[in-house]
Amino acid sequence: MLESRPAEVSLIEVGPRDGLQNETKVLTAEIKARFIKELAAAGLKTIETTSFVRADKIPQMGDANSLYALVKNLKGVDLPCLVPNEMGLDNALGSGVKHIAVFTATSDTFNKKNTNVTMKESFDRIGPVMDRAHKENLKIRGYISTVFGCPYEGKTSVDRLIEVVEFYLKHGADEISVGDTIGVATPIQIKSIIKELKAVTELKKIAMHFHDTRSMAMVNTLTSLELGITRFDSSAGGLGGCPYAKGATGNAATEDLVYLMHSLGIKTGIDLDLLAKASQYILGELGRETQSKVLKAYLASKDTTPCPF
Amino acid sequence: MLESRPAEVSLIEVGPRDGLQNETKVLTAEIKARFIKELAAAGLKTIETTSFVRADKIPQMGDANSLYALVKNLKGVDLPCLVPNEMGLDNALGSGVKHIAVFTATSDTFNKKNTNVTMKESFDRIGPVMDRAHKENLKIRGYISTVFGCPYEGKTSVDRLIEVVEFYLKHGADEISVGDTIGVATPIQIKSIIKELKAVTELKKIAMHFHDTRSMAMVNTLTSLELGITRFDSSAGGLGGCPYAKGATGNAATEDLVYLMHSLGIKTGIDLDLLAKASQYILGELGRETQSKVLKAYLASKDTTPCPF
Repeated sequence: MLESRPAEVSLIEVGPRDGLQNETKVLTAEIKARFIKELAAAGLKTIETTSFVRADKIPQMGDANSLYALVKNLKGVDLPCLVPNEMGLDNALGSGVKHIAVFTATSDTFNKKNTNVTMKESFDRIGPVMDRAHKENLKIRGYISTVFGCPYEGKTSVDRLIEVVEFYLKHGADEISVGDTIGVATPIQIKSIIKELKAVTELKKIAMHFHDTRSMAMVNTLTSLELGITRFDSSAGGLGGCPYAKGATGNAATEDLVYLMHSLGIKTGIDLDLLAKASQYILGELGRETQSKVLKAYLASKDTTPCPF
Repeated sequence: MLESRPAEVSLIEVGPRDGLQNETKVLTAEIKARFIKELAAAGLKTIETTSFVRADKIPQMGDANSLYALVKNLKGVDLPCLVPNEMGLDNALGSGVKHIAVFTATSDTFNKKNTNVTMKESFDRIGPVMDRAHKENLKIRGYISTVFGCPYEGKTSVDRLIEVVEFYLKHGADEISVGDTIGVATPIQIKSIIKELKAVTELKKIAMHFHDTRSMAMVNTLTSLELGITRFDSSAGGLGGCPYAKGATGNAATEDLVYLMHSLGIKTGIDLDLLAKASQYILGELGRETQSKVLKAYLASKDTTPCPF
């Protein structure tokens, strides 16, 4: 217990894309750009910015070009953008994007509902995107959804996870995000999955993407940390609910992860005060309460001197 | 990691007392009795029932005698009741209480604000209560607050923790609840505190009482589990906010702990469906939303077939 911890970790901020994409109140590019700039000021070094998808599919992402133009000159910050297909890649390249993200899921049913293809069929769409991006010297992040369970199929296969990982690596992925899409991962599962991942790649290429739907994100993060993972996706203020269960929570909150890391003496490079400011700004624009308990405690402490943050 | 886990744990339900005592909407004894009976039906074996205090001090606990009368015949369930002093003990004995709980804090300022005495002065009040209870063959639980930090003093002393533990043991405590009153405990602190506790008592006499104010309760629970702790306090639905920071969350939710334990293959004897039913009942009576992410996911899953609980 607590024997093997890294000295520092990297947090990949997914709030502006993953966190906002299901929000029905569409924000202006200016608001999203300010959010991204405040996140960068707080010390986030990788901020998933937007998605180059058709505006009629995801209205919140309809301003990808203009948003990217507003933030592209941020110094020292990596700004990955999701691209679903070659048309999205063309669009992203036109905007000067330097880092893309692609996605698939280990569950066929989930893929079918999302993109109308099976996992294997999705490779035919993603492969050419990755190959071209690689040739253009873009960095590539590959998302894998439903790794720990699927809202439609239940249990999912580790063999299929490894199949996607190997496909991503073959096509030049720099990083692979292993996603607990519905928040059902357990420490025992994580242990066995990390063992399998280690057999096919270096763990520094893996980011864990946990959801806190069942209050397990911090436990799963600690477990992953102790097994050698040093990169984690999270969302400022816990933006992004669970689209598969209305009223349930989704993405692990960046504030909660930062607090956990700092409490373990692990560096994140992130200033919690500035992060809280960024989250408060975007939550205010959305008219939403935060899902982050750390942010709630922080906001509460503003009114009550005795409770130290 | 995950090498040393117990086969089963005991969860001590503190919702009816600790969870409800700061609620300003005073519930009838009948409502609280139904809540306690539903908790017992869910498999909780120890349910902190009420507090024998002056009704003008804590109105919610003003019905201790009539509430205890309504639940005292529950089979196979231990029903500890808080007693602050000898008058409370007389009252509890008159009601036929078989298990009492006493309390103090390691922080003098906290004690002063709560009961107008220092920690050492509190021993003069508690000692005679414990000695009489012991003579009457009552079981005794001793609460220790502010073990990991104090809302007024900040850092608190491990030496003072050990002083209270030794005092409680000397006066016949069967169990000692080690409390993270404001939710600032960290795994590193827990490791060092458990080491100190082991030097003066068997760990089976220790229950950890975590607050999830900063999303650390599950991580702190996992850490404690792996260091040999098998008893945990928690509150159904996460009842009970953080009275030291309005809007922040307090007690670790029983649902979250049950889910964590089951996901680790550890038995609790608790049926999550029946527990959710008990929590929904009392939350409905209070007109409150739950703080438990597991309960939120459970309630959300009722409307959306795809998201399995």
